[in-house]
Amino acid sequence: MAGTAVTAGPHGPDGPAPDGAGAPGALIAALDIGGTKIAGGLVDEHGVLRHRVRVPTPATGDRDELMTAVDHVLDDLSRHPDWLRVRALGIGSAGPVDTARGTVSPVNLPGWREFPLRAETARHPAAAHLPIVLGGDAIAMTAAEHWRGAARPYRNALCLVVSTGIGAGIVLDGVLHTGTTGNAGHLGHITVDFAGRPCPCGSRGCLEGLASGTAIARTATELGWRPGPDGDPTAGAVARAAHAGDPLALAAFDRAARALAAGIAATATLVELDAAVIGGGVAQAGSVLFEPLTRHLADYATLPFTRHLTLHPALLGTDAGLIGAAALTRPATTHP
Amino acid sequence: MAGTAVTAGPHGPDGPAPDGAGAPGALIAALDIGGTKIAGGLVDEHGVLRHRVRVPTPATGDRDELMTAVDHVLDDLSRHPDWLRVRALGIGSAGPVDTARGTVSPVNLPGWREFPLRAETARHPAAAHLPIVLGGDAIAMTAAEHWRGAARPYRNALCLVVSTGIGAGIVLDGVLHTGTTGNAGHLGHITVDFAGRPCPCGSRGCLEGLASGTAIARTATELGWRPGPDGDPTAGAVARAAHAGDPLALAAFDRAARALAAGIAATATLVELDAAVIGGGVAQAGSVLFEPLTRHLADYATLPFTRHLTLHPALLGTDAGLIGAAALTRPATTHP
Repeated sequence: MAGTAVTAGPHGPDGPAPDGAGAPGALIAALDIGGTKIAGGLVDEHGVLRHRVRVPTPATGDRDELMTAVDHVLDDLSRHPDWLRVRALGIGSAGPVDTARGTVSPVNLPGWREFPLRAETARHPAAAHLPIVLGGDAIAMTAAEHWRGAARPYRNALCLVVSTGIGAGIVLDGVLHTGTTGNAGHLGHITVDFAGRPCPCGSRGCLEGLASGTAIARTATELGWRPGPDGDPTAGAVARAAHAGDPLALAAFDRAARALAAGIAATATLVELDAAVIGGGVAQAGSVLFEPLTRHLADYATLPFTRHLTLHPALLGTDAGLIGAAALTRPATTHP
Repeated sequence: MAGTAVTAGPHGPDGPAPDGAGAPGALIAALDIGGTKIAGGLVDEHGVLRHRVRVPTPATGDRDELMTAVDHVLDDLSRHPDWLRVRALGIGSAGPVDTARGTVSPVNLPGWREFPLRAETARHPAAAHLPIVLGGDAIAMTAAEHWRGAARPYRNALCLVVSTGIGAGIVLDGVLHTGTTGNAGHLGHITVDFAGRPCPCGSRGCLEGLASGTAIARTATELGWRPGPDGDPTAGAVARAAHAGDPLALAAFDRAARALAAGIAATATLVELDAAVIGGGVAQAGSVLFEPLTRHLADYATLPFTRHLTLHPALLGTDAGLIGAAALTRPATTHP
């Protein structure tokens, strides 16, 4: 398996960083490990992604096949002349993770269960001399949005990825709050309907079962919505139908938005938040999600100290994975 | 109005502090302002309450009558010979509070709305030279239980006061998490039933409406439970009936415990917790609360990183208000 190297010019969300972006300086190597791709990149001190490689994830592979794919990405990255300037390696991985032990057990990668990803990565010759920081992918996205994206102006923020599932991370007092094992911010599995339907996690009435893309598609179907001629039954198709004015599709988004609003308000009530940033495929539905979400949030975030909370679409898109993995290594945004 | 001075011997939860408790050392003055009493105390470096005064709260008084009562407590406290050793003043107040602005608006004290309690207290001659730290009463209780009580062994803890309402505070990474305005940990107003009944706060399905003492008494009545010959319709009477085996009273506690479990599990899922400490009048129901709460918590706290969470009764009782107000002034337990 050969990595597909894509040399990226400096392309942060605002284009090239204002100063120093071309000067030699320290770089951070980043790995973003997901169910469909394993990406690697070099990120500069300004959070600009400067080089990128990517391979498909051998999702059904065993532990060694999966690690071989990671090693290929590191091989490619470390052949880049700028590798000499790399000072740290950040890894964002599909979860659950256990950052205290350095292990990952990604739901979609059954070959890795309590796999010692941090230690195995440290065995790669190019990484052996580097400090390595591991985090969950939603926490990496949060670190990215706080460093370079929509959460940048805020000291207290919740960043969500709403796609087939729901992940999130929390910034408190300007610092990423990871929790002891790196799993803080698991917003998809807080209960917002305590007598509601059982969740695969074992609990009940979890937000993910009400507001993820999967849930939106299911709710739409339960309400009587049917896919169009293209047969697409996903939340993306429900979003297109909602934009076209389909009342059942709109109702499905409304119900998801209401549950999301309850979950975001609960978080603001528990820790005090200034902003919530929402990314992921479902967030790309735009107004059919954000309009009812804004409305319902006003109904659930009623205590005076929660009312100033603002909603924002995420800014970094798929780059958030690599920029965020790099951000995990920055002392200012991680707990010691 | 004269304060009733009660000279207390050293009496922390474990009796006298092991060493130095009798030696001259710095003291912290503490005020605990509630709907029925205003208490003051002197607390030593070990968290031992050494002197205490108390006056009834003129709850229906105007802003000046209320402040005069606070001044009387400070008058009494500052006549104590140990006042010369006082280095800081901590105030725990019924909420809501706004610690950023130093104001309080206690629900049960209508004479104070956005009352500048910190500044007004600083005008007292005995307090003028002292640093003054203001916090909400539930956060003060949390600081106390983390300093000297049941949360002491834990770096990540939720401390709840379950009485007529539900308040709480959170310790993260060993540090009290107060939030920007001192209102973090408002567990009573997170939504655990997003399509549930409206709450006086303006939201819906709040935990307080399902699990406070008030809610337990209401649920019992709705289920058909009736007070005994003494006519007592409160949660305390429901607890006594539950201990005697009354199935309706037991069902009322079970329902409250289930909602509490969902709320505690949500908090653990969002921030990672090691322990939850429960105080307040309803917690004194003992096994009829803790037994179903433990059972339901196992059903809601299902993700691996939440399963080690343990439940504990609070240890400090009513002293928690003064010890906690003092604890708010300690740099190690407050954010800068």
